[in-house]
Amino acid sequence: MATSQLAVEGLRNWDQFKLIDFKPKEIEDKDIDIRIEFCGVCGSDVHSNYGRLGEASLGESRNRRLLARSPGVGPGVTEFKVGDRVGVGAQIGACYSCDRCKGGAENYCTKGVDTYNAKYPNGDIAQGGYSTAIRANERFVFKIPDEVELEDAAPMMCAGLTVFAPLKYHGAGPGKSVGVMGIGGLGHFAIQFAQALGSDRIIAFSHSENKKNDALEMGATDFVITANKNFPEAWKDTVDIMICTIDASKHMPLTDILATLKVHGRCVMVAIPDDHLPPIHAFDLVPSGIMLAGSHIGSKADVIEMLELAANKKVKSRTEILDMSKAGEAVKNLKNNNVRYRFVLRSDI
Amino acid sequence: MATSQLAVEGLRNWDQFKLIDFKPKEIEDKDIDIRIEFCGVCGSDVHSNYGRLGEASLGESRNRRLLARSPGVGPGVTEFKVGDRVGVGAQIGACYSCDRCKGGAENYCTKGVDTYNAKYPNGDIAQGGYSTAIRANERFVFKIPDEVELEDAAPMMCAGLTVFAPLKYHGAGPGKSVGVMGIGGLGHFAIQFAQALGSDRIIAFSHSENKKNDALEMGATDFVITANKNFPEAWKDTVDIMICTIDASKHMPLTDILATLKVHGRCVMVAIPDDHLPPIHAFDLVPSGIMLAGSHIGSKADVIEMLELAANKKVKSRTEILDMSKAGEAVKNLKNNNVRYRFVLRSDI
Repeated sequence: MATSQLAVEGLRNWDQFKLIDFKPKEIEDKDIDIRIEFCGVCGSDVHSNYGRLGEASLGESRNRRLLARSPGVGPGVTEFKVGDRVGVGAQIGACYSCDRCKGGAENYCTKGVDTYNAKYPNGDIAQGGYSTAIRANERFVFKIPDEVELEDAAPMMCAGLTVFAPLKYHGAGPGKSVGVMGIGGLGHFAIQFAQALGSDRIIAFSHSENKKNDALEMGATDFVITANKNFPEAWKDTVDIMICTIDASKHMPLTDILATLKVHGRCVMVAIPDDHLPPIHAFDLVPSGIMLAGSHIGSKADVIEMLELAANKKVKSRTEILDMSKAGEAVKNLKNNNVRYRFVLRSDI
Repeated sequence: MATSQLAVEGLRNWDQFKLIDFKPKEIEDKDIDIRIEFCGVCGSDVHSNYGRLGEASLGESRNRRLLARSPGVGPGVTEFKVGDRVGVGAQIGACYSCDRCKGGAENYCTKGVDTYNAKYPNGDIAQGGYSTAIRANERFVFKIPDEVELEDAAPMMCAGLTVFAPLKYHGAGPGKSVGVMGIGGLGHFAIQFAQALGSDRIIAFSHSENKKNDALEMGATDFVITANKNFPEAWKDTVDIMICTIDASKHMPLTDILATLKVHGRCVMVAIPDDHLPPIHAFDLVPSGIMLAGSHIGSKADVIEMLELAANKKVKSRTEILDMSKAGEAVKNLKNNNVRYRFVLRSDI
């Protein structure tokens, strides 16, 4: 498989991509080669390019052409045939043999391999999806239902899954009130999936009123402006499941977010700030018996359920589509928080 | 109702009790007068006497003589008759009208009244159970099954309930592994109730090996000495539900406790340290999708279920029984952590 990708050279040039050729991972029995047509741009991409590593890319990737069973593809693939419309998310490998993998929680495998900026056990690099193609074990490849457009599926593979999996695990649905803290790439999916799951009430929390109309259109029943200092008191005891997409180490006291929870309410941190979370006291948790939770993308079963739900309930990604050669423009605008609500790159490389 | 109680005068004399007379709360329709025969001694009693307030007492109280429907008792009592063996826990009042109360979560009522060191809305003082008698709304009075000894029931009303309710809520039982951090008044009940609920594995975590035999006798399947620095690595990924009874602000890094959790594991803080919890990072929660939870005693439904389980599975409090006039000796020894595993005071005042 011949592959080219967009890459950056060094931290200083984090928004200057150039085209390079690279060797895909060594082929194995269950691997599939996929031609990339669309690729989502994730906050982690900016983070990876700007703050930590100098190379590589990608949040979500997926593609309609499956090259399985071609001479370059392993013989062990059973789930897919050539031509299937498929996607790949933010994880592309695991050990496949631990209790977590065997129990259907491969997203919590301690030997998981990220789709980008990561190494396989043999040293091969996972290059991500700002690419012409990607090679992946079929466990981390997902069929896209016919009803879901490819460009809508792209950002669901990472941002959508990151909020859908905890909504499902923590019981969003009839009888439940869901809070969404921060209305961006993650939050706009959280509102829609909370509604698709049948939640009674969906409360959108945002810094200003800028996104109010969008949030209500997407399914929010209430819109709360968190710049109003009295919001924790005014909205206390209203939320069963809070999906927190903001950096709780900076933007507001974590205790203000926890104050909105009902008895046995859960606050799921899906953003991962660089810094420690603000210190909390047992008294922040005890008086309502609440929980502070983490969550890591989702399992294959979660992806399949999410895509079925998206197809049946017409969940629609709100994206801005750019040619992939303009990846630099996308990550620059994303860093400045100038996107509604997710960039998707269309392959032109 | 004539009532006497043991009380302390001022913080300096926190372990010097003397007998005083006091006026019980104003009588209301659903109130019951109870003669006290046994009263548990709770860590909070030491805390109340020593660190914060100067007066009053009691962790758990219960009694066999119910004086309901006597001339001094309200006419609205429906659940009890004179002579019932009953108990009262650490909460003695609530608003009875909020969503939490009406939904069966009166233990999370924001207007709850503690059984001791607390005020009713009209200013009457809740005097606790180092007393000859106590007056309580029937919602906070519980029948003790015939199979459960009164002196065993006493500490279950507070310590037992504090661990039983989160074990039940978080799903302890077949297929689950329960961790118990700290084997004292709370922990010795957590081991037994985890076993009574049918949990597959019960891992006791204790600073030294002193309590090993007791823990294994009470139902622990494993005993871990936390003074061994490698315990978080050796016991990682083993616990579904951790009941944390220790002061996690002091005794060890909270991250060491969290490291023992399986995917979607929960760490329930049932101790309430004075200080903030040690700061955690989203990365402490995300890689296994775990939860840090609070819990506050339990509801009436929880108490009833706990007592039935205790009767059926022969859960047995491990106590040291002292005459109530020796309350000072009890709280002094409790402060020095010199009790296995709970003091119970037998009325002699």
